[in-house]
Amino acid sequence: MRHDHVISAKQLSRAGIEEVLDRAAEIAADPSAWGHRHEGALLGLCFFEPSTRTKMSFTAAAKRLGGDVVDMGPVGSSSVKKGESLADTVRVVEGYADALVLRHPSEGSAKMASEFVDVPLINAGDGAGQHPTQTLLDLYTIRESAGLDDITVGIMGDLKYGRTVHSLAHALTNFDVRQHFVSPESLELPRSVRYDLHEEGASIKEHKTLDPVLSELDVLYVTRIQRERFPDESEYRAIAGEYQIDAATLEDGRDDLTVMHPLPRVDEIAHDVDDTDHAAYFQQAHNGVPVRMALLDLLLEGER
Amino acid sequence: MRHDHVISAKQLSRAGIEEVLDRAAEIAADPSAWGHRHEGALLGLCFFEPSTRTKMSFTAAAKRLGGDVVDMGPVGSSSVKKGESLADTVRVVEGYADALVLRHPSEGSAKMASEFVDVPLINAGDGAGQHPTQTLLDLYTIRESAGLDDITVGIMGDLKYGRTVHSLAHALTNFDVRQHFVSPESLELPRSVRYDLHEEGASIKEHKTLDPVLSELDVLYVTRIQRERFPDESEYRAIAGEYQIDAATLEDGRDDLTVMHPLPRVDEIAHDVDDTDHAAYFQQAHNGVPVRMALLDLLLEGER
Amino acid sequence: MRHDHVISAKQLSRAGIEEVLDRAAEIAADPSAWGHRHEGALLGLCFFEPSTRTKMSFTAAAKRLGGDVVDMGPVGSSSVKKGESLADTVRVVEGYADALVLRHPSEGSAKMASEFVDVPLINAGDGAGQHPTQTLLDLYTIRESAGLDDITVGIMGDLKYGRTVHSLAHALTNFDVRQHFVSPESLELPRSVRYDLHEEGASIKEHKTLDPVLSELDVLYVTRIQRERFPDESEYRAIAGEYQIDAATLEDGRDDLTVMHPLPRVDEIAHDVDDTDHAAYFQQAHNGVPVRMALLDLLLEGER
Repeated sequence: MRHDHVISAKQLSRAGIEEVLDRAAEIAADPSAWGHRHEGALLGLCFFEPSTRTKMSFTAAAKRLGGDVVDMGPVGSSSVKKGESLADTVRVVEGYADALVLRHPSEGSAKMASEFVDVPLINAGDGAGQHPTQTLLDLYTIRESAGLDDITVGIMGDLKYGRTVHSLAHALTNFDVRQHFVSPESLELPRSVRYDLHEEGASIKEHKTLDPVLSELDVLYVTRIQRERFPDESEYRAIAGEYQIDAATLEDGRDDLTVMHPLPRVDEIAHDVDDTDHAAYFQQAHNGVPVRMALLDLLLEGER
Repeated sequence: MRHDHVISAKQLSRAGIEEVLDRAAEIAADPSAWGHRHEGALLGLCFFEPSTRTKMSFTAAAKRLGGDVVDMGPVGSSSVKKGESLADTVRVVEGYADALVLRHPSEGSAKMASEFVDVPLINAGDGAGQHPTQTLLDLYTIRESAGLDDITVGIMGDLKYGRTVHSLAHALTNFDVRQHFVSPESLELPRSVRYDLHEEGASIKEHKTLDPVLSELDVLYVTRIQRERFPDESEYRAIAGEYQIDAATLEDGRDDLTVMHPLPRVDEIAHDVDDTDHAAYFQQAHNGVPVRMALLDLLLEGER
Repeated sequence: MRHDHVISAKQLSRAGIEEVLDRAAEIAADPSAWGHRHEGALLGLCFFEPSTRTKMSFTAAAKRLGGDVVDMGPVGSSSVKKGESLADTVRVVEGYADALVLRHPSEGSAKMASEFVDVPLINAGDGAGQHPTQTLLDLYTIRESAGLDDITVGIMGDLKYGRTVHSLAHALTNFDVRQHFVSPESLELPRSVRYDLHEEGASIKEHKTLDPVLSELDVLYVTRIQRERFPDESEYRAIAGEYQIDAATLEDGRDDLTVMHPLPRVDEIAHDVDDTDHAAYFQQAHNGVPVRMALLDLLLEGER
């Protein structure tokens, strides 16, 4: 990964993923050793929609490497308002930075933008499209908790609209992972995603409830079921309630079951899970820093 | 003060206060000597309501120590909007930082949040509750101007709603300070605050006007009387006007009288006071930097 | 330029301009050599109206010098809302920083504010007034492309309301530059600007269309004609269309013609110009960093 853009998790081979995760593990083992690694490097943050957490994580990553950020700020106060094209915006901002992070509501925007700039561009989410650094930190968390070979992962909740879930499922096909999908019928995997996973030879099964599969899982990845996917509040409550877990639920799982969630959570995981050894979701969020440091390090190394 | 949270000025003993003020004085005497003191340290800024000045002051403090900040940004663009709890938010953000600063509209929120994180958390104001770093910078300014023993301090303006004033009055009971309170009847000290001050053995007197006490004061601390405390504009104007000072007013005070104000001011202190030697309010604002540097230094020192 | 405020391009002599441009050229030749030049220096950003690009450019400049920024953030969340005067705001913020950058909607505000602070203040645009660092980066770009002596510069578009254009035209009178102004009648140079340029002995000519003068130009500076200057959409479209250029237009110009634009552009310059050697507008934006680094360096050098 020299001098490349990072647009999609799909572009990453198993070797490419492992290069990032290995570097992240090295960093996490001794973060302070990396504090002067990219002194003076500036990361340009172009967030065309808010995503505070992703922005904070990239910011911490840049600063933990001795670098810093230059932030475009909210779109409402920028040249975008005056009708500037995305291509123009990134071409201006690349003059202020050594690498760019782009978050944009339109699918495909990151790929398009990357064609106009000479510095590495990282996609931090483009609408219903990709968010590769989320996938990488998910993979890193799974690897740290359960390894990435000969494991069973359950993914539960909104499997229809969840970009995070689709990217993760695709990425897991690079490894020896059995995947179980658990969702209400109305929010099951889109046909196209299911088709792709089969094409890639993935071992997947789909379920309406967690019960039949819980005891087999090494990892349970929970996602939020959003209120706005349902025509009325009562239907939402009835369905969402069936996909919530608490400490009692997990008593039927393995002792070393790892529970993940991309956060923020609302009711999907009860607070009594937080104090169990299963809970890995805060650590998962924290893992965003070494993973993004690793990615930046590999990209900027290519620049030198 | 090793590894602690800083939630309330009330938690600070005289020795604890003096430790911070002494460190601040050391820093102020030679700020550049501290520029590499906490290189690489990151301060997480969680401001759930705007307070630009406090945020700038903490930011400058972190950077003057060689550290940096990671800012959550405005709440409108964060996970809070999606219904995330404060406990979850701070647990995520602590993964990005070595210490947290929390500003939140709800009294008690800082204490609650601190119970969920392992890094030191500083309360930067929790509603009608506490704002301990404001109190520390007020104490520092008084000590630099007049010392903190055997002095007479007047506090004038809105004594009913002013969190700043209540915290300062409490903190001053640790020292040999005579306190005079000057306010309209409708904005006098709340009974509970008066009671507490008496319990702590404070020497306090209350007045309707500044006249009878002005000549005794070493320090006059002025606060703003807010328009919205009064049913109509004319009543507000009449009352507020009696608690405004100008250069002529101060001619009846001591030559070395120090005038303070937490800022922003509107009409409480006329601009002709700015050019007199009495004016300490801009210096007071500037003192926020060495005082917050001192506090961060003591907290992060405990971390190492 | 020791310890001064930078309020207006008009205050800059030819020698003063050249000092900044020479320093900028030195910096651009080897930017990494300047990365520790002002370690620890803090630049206070006071933007009373949004100007993301200018803010990013100053931020990158400060950080490329080893310094950092302390940003007041949007006015909506600041003490300004509580009625604080500009003079008070800058007097508080100067306590957090070693130099200030002020952007304010009121003409003359930068001059006024500078009278209240002891640290250097740079005007980053005051309404219809001045924006001297834009002028300096324009001059730098012209000098790098075509030199600043014995050249012909065309300035086209909105010449009536364009602050950028007026400042540039004034600054060019310090050099041996023939100036051609091209605009619709309703947007031609204001009488006062024309008068001043004549007073300064400038060689200027005005035109309704680009045709008669294009072939003479070393530099063509295009500005945006704003929709809101016209009573109706169709009139706007008709007029604006006559002042747009594309690659075909430029075939009648010199081979080494340099095309500039302060950005953002909308339709004034077709995208097919981007790929020609004429296009200098992205480079022009990027030049803001070394030029602002040079200015900061000269100002902070005076401070030491």
